[in-house]
Amino acid sequence: MSTESEPPKVQEEVDSSSQSISKKAAKKEAAKKAKEERRKEAEAAASAASALSIEEEGPLANNYGDVPLQELQSVNDPQTGKWSEAVSGREWTEVGALNGSLKDQEVLIRGRVHTTRPVGNKLAFVVVRERVSTVQCLATVKPDSVSKEMVRFVRSLSNESIVDVIGVVSVPDVEIKGATQQVEVQIKKLYCVSRAAKTPITIEDASRSEAEIEKASKEGVQLPRVNQDTRLNNRVIDIRTLANQGIFRIQSQVGNIFRQFLLSENFVEIHTPKLIAGSSEGGSAVFRLDYKGQSACLAQSPQLHKQMSICGDFGRVFETGPVFRAEDSYTHRHLCEFTGLDVEMEIKKHYSEVMDIVDCLFVTIFDSLNNVCKKELEAVAKQYPFEPLKYKPKTLRLTFEEGVQMLKDAGVEIDPLGDLNTESERKLGQLVLEK
Amino acid sequence: MSTESEPPKVQEEVDSSSQSISKKAAKKEAAKKAKEERRKEAEAAASAASALSIEEEGPLANNYGDVPLQELQSVNDPQTGKWSEAVSGREWTEVGALNGSLKDQEVLIRGRVHTTRPVGNKLAFVVVRERVSTVQCLATVKPDSVSKEMVRFVRSLSNESIVDVIGVVSVPDVEIKGATQQVEVQIKKLYCVSRAAKTPITIEDASRSEAEIEKASKEGVQLPRVNQDTRLNNRVIDIRTLANQGIFRIQSQVGNIFRQFLLSENFVEIHTPKLIAGSSEGGSAVFRLDYKGQSACLAQSPQLHKQMSICGDFGRVFETGPVFRAEDSYTHRHLCEFTGLDVEMEIKKHYSEVMDIVDCLFVTIFDSLNNVCKKELEAVAKQYPFEPLKYKPKTLRLTFEEGVQMLKDAGVEIDPLGDLNTESERKLGQLVLEK
Repeated sequence: MSTESEPPKVQEEVDSSSQSISKKAAKKEAAKKAKEERRKEAEAAASAASALSIEEEGPLANNYGDVPLQELQSVNDPQTGKWSEAVSGREWTEVGALNGSLKDQEVLIRGRVHTTRPVGNKLAFVVVRERVSTVQCLATVKPDSVSKEMVRFVRSLSNESIVDVIGVVSVPDVEIKGATQQVEVQIKKLYCVSRAAKTPITIEDASRSEAEIEKASKEGVQLPRVNQDTRLNNRVIDIRTLANQGIFRIQSQVGNIFRQFLLSENFVEIHTPKLIAGSSEGGSAVFRLDYKGQSACLAQSPQLHKQMSICGDFGRVFETGPVFRAEDSYTHRHLCEFTGLDVEMEIKKHYSEVMDIVDCLFVTIFDSLNNVCKKELEAVAKQYPFEPLKYKPKTLRLTFEEGVQMLKDAGVEIDPLGDLNTESERKLGQLVLEK
Repeated sequence: MSTESEPPKVQEEVDSSSQSISKKAAKKEAAKKAKEERRKEAEAAASAASALSIEEEGPLANNYGDVPLQELQSVNDPQTGKWSEAVSGREWTEVGALNGSLKDQEVLIRGRVHTTRPVGNKLAFVVVRERVSTVQCLATVKPDSVSKEMVRFVRSLSNESIVDVIGVVSVPDVEIKGATQQVEVQIKKLYCVSRAAKTPITIEDASRSEAEIEKASKEGVQLPRVNQDTRLNNRVIDIRTLANQGIFRIQSQVGNIFRQFLLSENFVEIHTPKLIAGSSEGGSAVFRLDYKGQSACLAQSPQLHKQMSICGDFGRVFETGPVFRAEDSYTHRHLCEFTGLDVEMEIKKHYSEVMDIVDCLFVTIFDSLNNVCKKELEAVAKQYPFEPLKYKPKTLRLTFEEGVQMLKDAGVEIDPLGDLNTESERKLGQLVLEK
C-alpha cells in the first residue's frame, strides 16, 4: 500500500496533431491561455522567492503555506507546524458531501486545485476537485484571517496541486456554473500538501467533448483535442477526468450488482485457473507460454472449469476475471485481454431457466445503475453523449425462426440455418428497437 | 452455459498404495464392500434386463423408472412421459430446506444417490445428496404407490446417479445419523434422471478424515485413503465431498465480505491488466510470453496499476484477481498462480489509517464467516480438523521494536534492523497468542 503521491512527471508533449491545429488557428483562446500561464509562472516564481526571502510575519501567516515533508511524515512524534495545528482534531468532509445543510459551518476539505482565478489582488477563486465533485472556494482579504499575501499564495497554486482548505460554507443566491456543488467555501486557511508540476495534459483539455470542440471550431476557435495515444501515455492524469472517474465507478458497480444478484440466487463465486495445459475452447487463438519447461496456455474462457464445477455439484457458479484471446482482430468487438462476467448453472427442466436468470440479471443491473450511478452516468454523457438505455422490465424473447422472419420481412437475405453475421445482428437489433 | 451432465467417465484406478494396504489388511471391511458391490452389479444387471424384457405393468409402474433422454430435452413440445407428468406443475425443494416444518407435506427433491441400503425385498433406503445436504428417503411396499418392483429399482440405483424423488416428509422419533437433515422422505415416486457409471473414487472414501483412517487402522481395519494425485485426476468427483463444497463456499463468501466491506468504505473495484510489458515488481520471478512479436509478462501483482489509480484520484481501490509468480519454490507459502485480494488507499495524515481499515476488514470477515458459513466450517472441520480462530474485536498492535523485544525476551536471537525470518515470525505469532 502506498500513500497518495504525485504522478510521475512525464515530460511528453501533447500530441502534435492537436497542437498543430491549435498553433494554426488558436488566436484568442491560445493567447488567453498563454497569458494565464505566464501569469501563473510569474506568480509561482514570486511565491517561491517570497517563501525563501520575505515570509510574511504575524498571526495571519499561520493560515496558509506549503506543508513541509517532515510535517507529513507518519511518525509517532511528527514535527508539528501550522498545518498540523490547523487540522488537528478535525475530520475531512468530502467535497461531494458539501451542500446547503452545512451552511455557516466550518469544514476541512482536501482536493486538487482544479482551476484558480484571481479578481484583483484582494480576491481569488480556487475550484477544488475531489474525484467527481468540485467546489468553488474564495479567498478574500479579511483583517482577522486572510492577508493580501495569502490571496497571492492562493493565486500561485498550480493546477492539480493537493490542498487542504478550512473555510465556512455559504450558499450563494445565484446558480454556480463552474462546479458540481451548489455551495461556496469562504476560505479561512489553506495549505498546499503537494504542489504539482506542470502536467503534460490539462484536465480541462482531456475532459472536452467532440461537440464542444466542433462548436468552437465553427466559431473560429481551435480548442486542443487530446488524442488516445496522449491519454494512454499520461493515464494517471487522464483518469482524473469526470468521465473516466464515472466509467470506472460504473464498472465497479456493474461487478457489484452482478455478484449480489447471483449470490442472492444461490450462485457460488469461483476463481478458475488462468494458466492451463491446453486451450479452453476451439475457435479463438491462444497465448502460449513456457511453464517451467512445459507448454501452457492462457485461458480463453473459464468454460471447462465452470462445467467441472457443475458436474462437481456446485449447482450454480459465476466468475469475474480476466480472459485472454490472442486473435489478430482489429474490430471494436475484440480485445486480447478483457474482464469476463461468466455464469454457469444446472437446469432442472428447460433451458428457459437460464434465460429467466439472465433476463432478470440484466434488468437488475440496468435498474440499479440508473439508481446508484446517476451522477457517474451524467459525467460520462457530458463528454461522450449517449442515448439513455431502453429496456423492458420483462425482456422480449424471439425464437431464431422469428428473428429470421423479421429480417426477411425487412428485405434482408438470410440463411435460415446459418449463424447471423454482425450486420444482420445489428439490423435485427434495430428492428426490435422499432417494435 | 450447459446443462447438468455426467462427469467424464475416468477409468483411473484408485491409487495403488491405498489399495495394496487395503488388500493386505482389509478382511471384514473389504469383504463387506465386495459383497455390497457384487449385489449392486447383480441388481443393476437384473434391472437392466427387466427394463428390456418384463417391464412392470399397471398404474404403479408409472411411479418410477429411468427418464429417457427425449423426455429431458428442452424443446417446445417435449415428449411427455411418466416423469414429465409426475413433476409437471411442481417446484423442487432444496434438500437443505427439508425440516420438521414440512411434516406430512409432499415434496419433490432432486439430488445424487449418496448411498442405498436394502432391508429385505420390501424396503430400501436411499440417501439423497444435494450439495452439502443429505436426506434419508425410504421406499417401502404399499398397495397404492410402491410395488416390489419399485423397491428393486431403488436398490439398483448406482451411487452418484441423479434422481427426482416425490415423497411425504416425516419426522422420526430417533436422531438420524446418516444424513444432515433430521427428517425422512417417504417415497411415493422416484425417477432416475441420469444413471452414473461406476466412479473411480467414492465420495465416502474421498470424505474420510485421517483420524478415521488411523482409528480404524488401530482396530485392524484398513480403510482406503484417497491421495492428492487421485483427487486431482478425478476433480469433479472429489469436489462433491462436503469438505470441498464447504471450502469453495467459504472462499466465495470471503470474496463477498471483502468486497462488501470495502465498497461500504468508498473503495472502487478495479480490474488491472494481467498482460504487461515489464515485470510488476522486483523480488519475484516472472512468466514471460510472446505478445504478437513483443515480449510481455504476466503480472506478479496489481501494484503499479493500483498506484496509478491512487494518483488518478480514485482514492481507494481494491481488486480480486489472479496473480502469477514463476518462482521455483516448493514451500507451502508459494503458488505460481493464486487469487489475490488487493487493497490500495490514499492516506490523509498517518499510515495507521490503513491499519484501521485492514484491522476492521479482517474482523468483519471472521465475524461474518462464523455467522453465514457455520455449516460449511463444520463440514471442513469434520474432514480436516482445525482449531476455531481466535481473534480480538480490536486487533493487538505491536511496533517492530516491541515484537523484536518479545522475541529477545523469549531467548530468540534477532537482528533488530533486519527482516524477521519465517521461524521468528511463527515464534512471534505463538508468543502473541499466549499473551
